Amino acid sequence: MTTATATDFAKRLDQTAEDTEALLAKLLSDTLLPDEIARPKRLMEAMRYSSLGGGKRLRPFLVVESSALFGVPREAALLAGAALECIHCYSLIHDDLPAMDNSDLRRGRPTLHKKTDDATAILAGDGLLTLAFDIITRDELHNDPTVRLLLTRALARASGIGGMVGGQMLDLAGEGRFGDREPVDVARLQQMKTGALLRYGCIAGAILGQSTPAQYQALDDYGRALGEAFQIADDLLDVEGDAAALGKQTGQDAALGKTTFVTQLGIDGAKQRVRDLLAKADSALSIFGAKGDVLRAAARFVADRKS
Amino acid sequence: MTTATATDFAKRLDQTAEDTEALLAKLLSDTLLPDEIARPKRLMEAMRYSSLGGGKRLRPFLVVESSALFGVPREAALLAGAALECIHCYSLIHDDLPAMDNSDLRRGRPTLHKKTDDATAILAGDGLLTLAFDIITRDELHNDPTVRLLLTRALARASGIGGMVGGQMLDLAGEGRFGDREPVDVARLQQMKTGALLRYGCIAGAILGQSTPAQYQALDDYGRALGEAFQIADDLLDVEGDAAALGKQTGQDAALGKTTFVTQLGIDGAKQRVRDLLAKADSALSIFGAKGDVLRAAARFVADRKS
Repeated sequence: MTTATATDFAKRLDQTAEDTEALLAKLLSDTLLPDEIARPKRLMEAMRYSSLGGGKRLRPFLVVESSALFGVPREAALLAGAALECIHCYSLIHDDLPAMDNSDLRRGRPTLHKKTDDATAILAGDGLLTLAFDIITRDELHNDPTVRLLLTRALARASGIGGMVGGQMLDLAGEGRFGDREPVDVARLQQMKTGALLRYGCIAGAILGQSTPAQYQALDDYGRALGEAFQIADDLLDVEGDAAALGKQTGQDAALGKTTFVTQLGIDGAKQRVRDLLAKADSALSIFGAKGDVLRAAARFVADRKS
Repeated sequence: MTTATATDFAKRLDQTAEDTEALLAKLLSDTLLPDEIARPKRLMEAMRYSSLGGGKRLRPFLVVESSALFGVPREAALLAGAALECIHCYSLIHDDLPAMDNSDLRRGRPTLHKKTDDATAILAGDGLLTLAFDIITRDELHNDPTVRLLLTRALARASGIGGMVGGQMLDLAGEGRFGDREPVDVARLQQMKTGALLRYGCIAGAILGQSTPAQYQALDDYGRALGEAFQIADDLLDVEGDAAALGKQTGQDAALGKTTFVTQLGIDGAKQRVRDLLAKADSALSIFGAKGDVLRAAARFVADRKS
């Protein structure tokens, strides 16, 4: 990647994070509810606490950049990205709960249930999950209702039991949370747990842009490679990363005795696998020529990130 | 209501409960996920435990009967009803959690978190909530995608922070769970907490049937009256009901010192309010003539139920 591209990538990532923050703030403002509805203020504050004020907004960025390949209006892509980010934020809230991963810190701040209480955190998660489906059906996304329906159903599939929720369950079972440790196929598990939402970010552009089947497949392949690279980087950071930069504890996987890409492949093997995945991501994007450079840079960013 | 109508009503209610049970069993079977997805078995069993084997299936019944007014195919109405029931079942799972209402029994059986554990219950709830949005977007519901989108968005609104989730939060705040007891407007709170989903069952038929605005308004008015009557009956059962018939403890509201329709109106006042609401429900249905009789009977059933 040339320096010019790297700078361009960083600028674009920052701009989308900024735009997503502003959009989420608007979506979660008090104007969300009509005046005749009694406002559950504590709930809305909790949803804002967990959705605003940070994060790289990688998932919305993938939606925006995959959409840009097809000239989809930026406003529409940002809206789809915001829906996806609501799903991501809800999953963090529920995963952090004492009954799940029992985490006290997230992005260097107290997790929502530490800041408030478990009931508020459960409901704020439910609220964000539901809000995502309110947002993803909106008229502003696309004038063809079939496109909005496809986007909606794909989001439900990526988030549900065959996607993120199912992956989280398999992960807990693999930790031995329900009796004996269940055997884990790390690649399949992570394809569900973290991969499905990242992949959704990539195919969302193809759906919004009414791509050809070949273009859809290219973004699907790219999204899968990026998702796996993301998770391997995560596993490597848990071993080699800096807790301060991460804003959370490292060494968690080892403490839990978890099967990860690193325990399966070793550190060097995991790093080699990341390089292979980057090559795969690059080649999947060849159908888009130079227009695919931002997404190429995104894959490198995901693989090399320090937090 | 004549005896003939009462029998007819009971038969129709039973038939829809049976059909809904069969449909949910199919929707939640192992064929739900394609073969290449790793199956989170514990999660799917948990979702089945909480969704199958009981309940009056009142919400699906409202969808089926409001749809019947417009000659909507029964299969389509049952599918929309199943999506709504998934939302209802998820809300019971999450509400029963120790962090929320801490209930051990539901329909005379251990609640899901007692049967399994809190993490499984949180994820099963998330899974059912997400599955509802998968179901409600399906092609079989209606050949016009705009209709499916309207149904989907209305479901998100009824379930979300301006509906069920928001109502649950206000209810907890009213119990003094987050410090001082917050003042409660029972009618508004319950319109959100329990009313929104019941009302959705009624307007779903109007949406699927592409009704006139006047017909939609009639079902909306009917649904609101039915929803309030349902909750007042619930509050009365907590005071006067039989725990064995209910399959759960009575006297819970008083133990929590909750503001309910009964504490606000007194027992006699609450019963009078139910009679007024039934009259309102009846009159809202006048636009449908004799075709509205089943829904009239449904309102009476809801108001008079003993469990």
